[in-house]
Amino acid sequence: MRMLDLILKKKNGGTLSKAEIQFFIQGVTHDTIPDYQTAAFLMAVCFQGMTPQETSALTEAMMYSGDTIDLSEIHGVKVDKHSTGGVGDKTTIALGPMVAACGIPVAKMSGRGLGHTGGTIDKLESFKGFQTALPIRQFMNQVNEIKLAVAGQTANLAPADKKLYALRDVTGTVENVSLIASSVMSKKLASGADAIVLDVKTGSGAFMKTKEEAVNLARTMVEIGKHMGRKTVALVTDMDQPLGKSVGNILEVKEAIDVLKGQGPKDITELCIQLGAWMLVLGECAADLDEGKAAMKKSITSGSALESMRQFIASQGGDPRYVDDPSLFDSASYLIEVTSPGSGIVTHIDAEGIGRAALVLGAGREQKDSQIDLAVGIVLNKKVGDEVALGESIATLHVNDLSKVEESELILLASYLIGEQAPEPNPLIYAVIQA
Amino acid sequence: MRMLDLILKKKNGGTLSKAEIQFFIQGVTHDTIPDYQTAAFLMAVCFQGMTPQETSALTEAMMYSGDTIDLSEIHGVKVDKHSTGGVGDKTTIALGPMVAACGIPVAKMSGRGLGHTGGTIDKLESFKGFQTALPIRQFMNQVNEIKLAVAGQTANLAPADKKLYALRDVTGTVENVSLIASSVMSKKLASGADAIVLDVKTGSGAFMKTKEEAVNLARTMVEIGKHMGRKTVALVTDMDQPLGKSVGNILEVKEAIDVLKGQGPKDITELCIQLGAWMLVLGECAADLDEGKAAMKKSITSGSALESMRQFIASQGGDPRYVDDPSLFDSASYLIEVTSPGSGIVTHIDAEGIGRAALVLGAGREQKDSQIDLAVGIVLNKKVGDEVALGESIATLHVNDLSKVEESELILLASYLIGEQAPEPNPLIYAVIQA
Repeated sequence: MRMLDLILKKKNGGTLSKAEIQFFIQGVTHDTIPDYQTAAFLMAVCFQGMTPQETSALTEAMMYSGDTIDLSEIHGVKVDKHSTGGVGDKTTIALGPMVAACGIPVAKMSGRGLGHTGGTIDKLESFKGFQTALPIRQFMNQVNEIKLAVAGQTANLAPADKKLYALRDVTGTVENVSLIASSVMSKKLASGADAIVLDVKTGSGAFMKTKEEAVNLARTMVEIGKHMGRKTVALVTDMDQPLGKSVGNILEVKEAIDVLKGQGPKDITELCIQLGAWMLVLGECAADLDEGKAAMKKSITSGSALESMRQFIASQGGDPRYVDDPSLFDSASYLIEVTSPGSGIVTHIDAEGIGRAALVLGAGREQKDSQIDLAVGIVLNKKVGDEVALGESIATLHVNDLSKVEESELILLASYLIGEQAPEPNPLIYAVIQA
Repeated sequence: MRMLDLILKKKNGGTLSKAEIQFFIQGVTHDTIPDYQTAAFLMAVCFQGMTPQETSALTEAMMYSGDTIDLSEIHGVKVDKHSTGGVGDKTTIALGPMVAACGIPVAKMSGRGLGHTGGTIDKLESFKGFQTALPIRQFMNQVNEIKLAVAGQTANLAPADKKLYALRDVTGTVENVSLIASSVMSKKLASGADAIVLDVKTGSGAFMKTKEEAVNLARTMVEIGKHMGRKTVALVTDMDQPLGKSVGNILEVKEAIDVLKGQGPKDITELCIQLGAWMLVLGECAADLDEGKAAMKKSITSGSALESMRQFIASQGGDPRYVDDPSLFDSASYLIEVTSPGSGIVTHIDAEGIGRAALVLGAGREQKDSQIDLAVGIVLNKKVGDEVALGESIATLHVNDLSKVEESELILLASYLIGEQAPEPNPLIYAVIQA
């Protein structure tokens, strides 16, 4: 088999066999296919697409390109959740304790990654003493005991995906539904979950700008899950403005705790309830979605989710008092109010702009070795549909380095549109895709 | 400027500016753009194409990526000829003396290259003593004195094209009209000709299988020539079967000499007259095409072309007696007749198959360092439209290594189709494209 023939086949609109796709992924994994051939192939895929069969074969080959984690020692149906990413998305921090409180075992391996803010691992380190380097035995035992553990990813999961992603990033071949779907699903499948709930974001702050693209991606991922024998459901959800009010690591952890206390913003709370309800259904802890939603709400009102959070933080060496007294968290040295340049109604908040404004303050990583400042970030005091008066605060910057304020503020102001009429509110959930 | 942005622009159907194309070619030349980005870009070009402006800018940037040859010391209009390549195409060997005899200065830099047979330089080395390593001063003087010189290419012509071609070859991105046209024209333009006659082959033995593709390529190259201020004409000519009867280095030189003597096969003789007539017109040595054709024919009947060949060979140290007594050339040890497996009329000869059959015998190079056997090759005794009887010889293999006969014969036989009815003969020239 020659890679050149596979490139030509795809370029000419052909369909690769499972064996051909395995040859490709093995070549990528073991560096026997040069990057220039892989790049040409990926560009051909961007133009010609892949069939559902090719996409499944690609996912499976990437899944088996490295370690696969065996979670069978954990009792119950392991349900994982994945979000395609957005600004202010702190659902994972809140959802874990909520579904754990309802009986779903949550065994999460998480990374740090690049982005406007840190990853889940970074955010959890906001709790003083919190350890994420858990030996696999301790990790499994903790899930069996308290239903919830989050560990830093040490296994070599889907190395072919890592290599392909790095190459896609520099060759303009990121945007293809089969490549995106297989990238997400290969890692999820390799990390051993029995069932997967996907949160596919759409809107100005999401990777998928239109609802159609997002539905297409959701469908593709659900098909892959089905092909691999995992119960999979995808919710297509709104990311036209940031989720909740806070963007930044400690700020987001605090907002997640607010959700557990029933004091969180409406959008993020509702999204946690919906995603969690689906997790309960797939995990066979709820007979249907309504029962799932009721259980999720009760986890908040009964305080069981908050108690789950305390246990979880304590089990991994963190200080659980932070949960009840968020003033214990580190805080930024300066709070800077960004005031409205006009009067009217907020008609749009560009989520990506808010993300960049937070990144400028030091909330996230531009490069792998960038230092994150956990305390800094942005709290949005006005969201879409809110009235605002000239000079009124629309957002609060949490700052440690004053030299960054001007740039961050400029980006933030450019992200707000203020008009005369409130826009029709977006639905929180556009579609639910099941196999 | 970032290469990633250029890739994305082309991927999304945009048009690159001249500055962007120069940035790309400089990056390729100086290895500051990694091959994987170049490969992704080339594949995007295969899908999105290039505008005439982009194609001209690409050609110009490649032309200036290395040395450009200044032929201004040579008197008269220097006219170059280029063929897109086919099997049995020995026009260059015959055309040079023919047009030189009519007053056109021919200053040819030529290579060896890969292929079914050697390049022009290899073929000329069939004359004992012939030298191709001419210092530039001697090269120019010889053209001024006898109108004809052929030297091995030592200058660093269009290095960006060399790199791009090598990458296209292994990434499935050879077949795009802008990439093909710019590759040919950048080298021609760098080698200093004032005017260019292009022979664009079409048919089963050509790179461009259909007449439409060939016309498109011809038009694109003529446009580039016009843009660069060179008089350019392209003839789209037939390559549905091999040209002439001989395939192999010495065999082709002998056939070229036959043409000069007025004893060559009809197709190759006619093609030389047509191409030469255009060279005379562009070189202002003929007022129109008819005058050009008459002059070309006269160069044969008067013996002036043959005399030009003798002078040319002698000037470069070769033995001119070979021209009059071709039995002096080396010959192969064995002549093997390939006989017809049936009776009827030859309806098709796959030119690529005949080329491969000659390559197997050792006539060409598969790799850069392959040794060429100048004496071996194939003479076709039957061409399309000829009657053939069972057991009659259809071709003669000229062989030095008997172990290669079986494979060569099998390929040759598979290349012949024998049927009941003579096909409609193809025209020799399908189209003439001028700016």
